[in-house]
Amino acid sequence: MKEKLSIIKIGGNVIENEEELSKFLTSFSQLKGFKILVHGGGKLATQLANQLGIESKMFQGRRITDADSLKIITMVYAGLTNKNIVAKLQSNNCNAIGLSGADGNIIKAHKRPVRDIDFGFVGDIENVDASIIDQLLTINLTPVFCAMSHNKHGQLLNTNADTIASEIAIAMSTIYETTLYYCFEKKGVLMDVNDDNSVVTEINSESYKQLLFDDVIADGMLPKMENCFHALKNNVKKVCIGNTNMLDSQSKLFTTLTL
Amino acid sequence: MKEKLSIIKIGGNVIENEEELSKFLTSFSQLKGFKILVHGGGKLATQLANQLGIESKMFQGRRITDADSLKIITMVYAGLTNKNIVAKLQSNNCNAIGLSGADGNIIKAHKRPVRDIDFGFVGDIENVDASIIDQLLTINLTPVFCAMSHNKHGQLLNTNADTIASEIAIAMSTIYETTLYYCFEKKGVLMDVNDDNSVVTEINSESYKQLLFDDVIADGMLPKMENCFHALKNNVKKVCIGNTNMLDSQSKLFTTLTL
Repeated sequence: MKEKLSIIKIGGNVIENEEELSKFLTSFSQLKGFKILVHGGGKLATQLANQLGIESKMFQGRRITDADSLKIITMVYAGLTNKNIVAKLQSNNCNAIGLSGADGNIIKAHKRPVRDIDFGFVGDIENVDASIIDQLLTINLTPVFCAMSHNKHGQLLNTNADTIASEIAIAMSTIYETTLYYCFEKKGVLMDVNDDNSVVTEINSESYKQLLFDDVIADGMLPKMENCFHALKNNVKKVCIGNTNMLDSQSKLFTTLTL
Repeated sequence: MKEKLSIIKIGGNVIENEEELSKFLTSFSQLKGFKILVHGGGKLATQLANQLGIESKMFQGRRITDADSLKIITMVYAGLTNKNIVAKLQSNNCNAIGLSGADGNIIKAHKRPVRDIDFGFVGDIENVDASIIDQLLTINLTPVFCAMSHNKHGQLLNTNADTIASEIAIAMSTIYETTLYYCFEKKGVLMDVNDDNSVVTEINSESYKQLLFDDVIADGMLPKMENCFHALKNNVKKVCIGNTNMLDSQSKLFTTLTL
């Protein structure tokens, strides 16, 4: 029987709120068994770019990562955010080790091909080295990944944190029984967007089709759900979506997705 | 018999020169056996601080690390510099893993006690966990340390890179036959400061006394040499001082210190 592994992704909404982050890191530290944290960036990078007079280049609402932006991202994601999370986890007796995808050659990617637009230094993942991650877990380290990959030719690349989390989860599923947790602002998938407690607690491939048909899942939730089912179809056992409270063992109000 | 381990420290003069850094990282990658890289910071942090209008506070020529400076250091040392070095080593097929002292709780320190002056977030090292470093080496990873420690209570701390290198070397000497390489601008300890090739190739405790007496070693070299002999007295086998060329196997012009 495979051992259990939890992979938790947090985003800007948690990272930017010191109290929320501290509370989350305590819960994360108390989580039993093997675990991995993946964190996004948040507004800190944008703030620093503004302070330095570096313009955020966007195309149709999507960010373009030019050389200056990549420097900012490397400083904030891999430096400030990652190391502060690691130091805080250490204070909770969680033996964290902060990583980018370049470290240990764990996440190899290639620069997104230019089609209509050049997104700059954005990496599409080719491969996650599950064996190195497994070896780190085996020596009781808890990997903490920032949202960066590399191309193995010396170039760091910016990669979406949700994608990093799901690709790590998929790779680790060959060795572990993997649960992927996406923490976001809401308690889960809501039947009624105006009712924060109208959480759909369980979704599978069948009920997903119905939710799509009923327009319960639309807009921003669509790519998130596609990402979840992509993970499930690639041997991730379970995907949970909710706010950071879902890590508390007594919490029941979040969405669990299975195939 | 103990296996051999090389610990190489590079400073700002290498990091700031792209060509020099690239050449060094190639030599480092080709180095046989177990190895560890320790890098300092350099002017990048000062440049970023200036751009952000953060004043570098100094006291009698020594830098004070206030909260803003610590953020800059975390972004530049642990982020930009560390991850770019890791990505470049990866392109040379060296399986590097970038670390601060908080990662894996490897370098535990305490904030330097306030006597005449509060140096701010500067860490004096208490303990280096040789066993975690050994485990990383054993799974064929090459640790790359930036000059940061932590206090295990959630606080990152700025720590001198020379000291980090010597304390890691001392800790690792319980397991490995350790050689510590300090790369700096010159080819080694010079008999005549005006003659770059007047390298004293071998120094031991006895000849060191004579060099001190003859005023060959003075000023900035004194603390460096004290640091070297501190390492040697604590079971580091050999300390070498010279420029980055000393890593090339055919190079002979550098200073080797032994007890």
